[in-house]
Amino acid sequence: MTQRDHILLAHGGGGQLTAELVAEVILPAIGGQDATALTDAAEVAWGGARVVFTTDSYVVQPLEFAGGDIGKLAVCGTVNDLAVAAAKPVALSMSLVLEEGLEIELLRRVLASGGEAARRAGVTIVTGDTKVIDRRGEPGMTINTAGIGAPLPGGRVGFRHVGAGDAIILTGPLGLHGLAVMCRRKGLSIASSLESDCQAIHELTAALLKALGPRVHWMRDPTRGGLAATLVDLARATGRNVEIHQRAIPTDPPATGAAEMLGLDLLNVANEGRLVAVVEAAAAEQAVNILATHEAAPAPVIIGNMGEATDMPLVEMVTAAGGRRIVQMPYGEDLPRIC
Amino acid sequence: MTQRDHILLAHGGGGQLTAELVAEVILPAIGGQDATALTDAAEVAWGGARVVFTTDSYVVQPLEFAGGDIGKLAVCGTVNDLAVAAAKPVALSMSLVLEEGLEIELLRRVLASGGEAARRAGVTIVTGDTKVIDRRGEPGMTINTAGIGAPLPGGRVGFRHVGAGDAIILTGPLGLHGLAVMCRRKGLSIASSLESDCQAIHELTAALLKALGPRVHWMRDPTRGGLAATLVDLARATGRNVEIHQRAIPTDPPATGAAEMLGLDLLNVANEGRLVAVVEAAAAEQAVNILATHEAAPAPVIIGNMGEATDMPLVEMVTAAGGRRIVQMPYGEDLPRIC
Repeated sequence: MTQRDHILLAHGGGGQLTAELVAEVILPAIGGQDATALTDAAEVAWGGARVVFTTDSYVVQPLEFAGGDIGKLAVCGTVNDLAVAAAKPVALSMSLVLEEGLEIELLRRVLASGGEAARRAGVTIVTGDTKVIDRRGEPGMTINTAGIGAPLPGGRVGFRHVGAGDAIILTGPLGLHGLAVMCRRKGLSIASSLESDCQAIHELTAALLKALGPRVHWMRDPTRGGLAATLVDLARATGRNVEIHQRAIPTDPPATGAAEMLGLDLLNVANEGRLVAVVEAAAAEQAVNILATHEAAPAPVIIGNMGEATDMPLVEMVTAAGGRRIVQMPYGEDLPRIC
Repeated sequence: MTQRDHILLAHGGGGQLTAELVAEVILPAIGGQDATALTDAAEVAWGGARVVFTTDSYVVQPLEFAGGDIGKLAVCGTVNDLAVAAAKPVALSMSLVLEEGLEIELLRRVLASGGEAARRAGVTIVTGDTKVIDRRGEPGMTINTAGIGAPLPGGRVGFRHVGAGDAIILTGPLGLHGLAVMCRRKGLSIASSLESDCQAIHELTAALLKALGPRVHWMRDPTRGGLAATLVDLARATGRNVEIHQRAIPTDPPATGAAEMLGLDLLNVANEGRLVAVVEAAAAEQAVNILATHEAAPAPVIIGNMGEATDMPLVEMVTAAGGRRIVQMPYGEDLPRIC
């Protein structure tokens, strides 16, 4: 089995290998799609209106972890994809692939959790599907949620709106989701207070757009591949350097400890309840103040700025010690099956 | 492991056990959903328009079979769910869950096939997702496609429109999909000319609705659980008896032979390119004539009629020998992972 001929776990990591698989295999094979297909939420004209449409499959193991479970994750993750596309989440589909032998009580728990997350987010699960496949070791399940949302008035976000000097805002500490799943998987008790940040962030994006309209230039939830993948993507797609300050990034001591113990870089670890927003510099303080009124943004801060356009755009981090470090796209998979 | 506490393969068969799992576990757990949630395509109000929204996960094994593959199936299946909901299919999402070790060449083939099916059906795959999970024996994959469609003008289909005397139309022989997959899986060469009926049927539904409008009362594609599950569902939901005539059902000699060899009832086997339409009796001949002009309807015929309302609605088949047989909802799973 070679890396070039067969799928590797690392192809699912949300980093360089995932991007190459999508760009070099998946999109060309499907054919006739534009380059953004199969990556982000898509906007479809609908009569006089528009539909924002997105999908994600969730394969997290274990199915339950501190702060969440696959049901809550599947709802919040797709709600968040709509939210960062400047849409109001309206309806979700939910498609279950269950493995033979799965405990029905466990199924009930994760679905109840997903249903509760949907009610809190104000979306309705309107259609679904259930399949069963043969078991594979400990019986598991995967959930696909697709979602449709309505573009928010005043929302106009996208890479092309990002300019030099724009502020980059982050809403809280990094890595809580990935580390909570990993600690549960490895049976680590080092970080008993560590909980996934799994939550819906649509109220954050709606509040920013309502107050600031087109002064909000771009938004993303830094999931697989973490903040590093999000910012490298931002730099490449805008053709601009990105500078962030390590000291500015909010920290969570249990997460920092767990990352050290597991040898992981918090920048690369998946989050499921954080927002990265790029806003006009002059609106940045106001944006932080707006976010600070919401529980879903525990520590909103400006972590850096967009730089000038360049042929070789880079993400640089000014380290706590005052040095500079280049932040790279994670290559493969530090943490398989994290979302 | 008991049937009541754990998921069985049979829970995925599209029969009685699937219906019970959805009604007794899934819907109550998610909560706050109406009884039709998680079963069919849903209609969502959208500005002055409406969006029909549906989802299906495809878990077929093997990934390629005579007449199709998982990519074509995933596109056609979701196109068809929109079509029988009287909607014009507009856009699909495609979410891949790949198993470690999957051959990339195989991935390319099934995606190319899915892309081609989408182009033929006039839908665009607009958004997607890719996950990788650890391998399980022969490396496989699952695909989820969700779809959005626009209600066709004049379309007004649903159980409540079905009345006594309505004709039941079927567009071709039964069981070709399930049997083609099964023969491939078992390495049977008995039926070398047997090919899945996997195809999009949106042109059939559009042509019927265009010509007959509200005289078309109900439509369904008889997939998992076959014609039997479709008709029992129809009888139960309308509270009316259903009568069909075995002699009227088109036959395909290789399918009949394969079903006999495998001990399967063609009424219970999955189809992926057939349409069952219930139309006003006076419009039935016209409907058959319209369908006959389309390649996707190889043998359109009236196979029976709707009966009177009753407390215990049954599906009865007048057999080729002139006897009567009650057609029952398949209980579990004759054919695991057929779609």
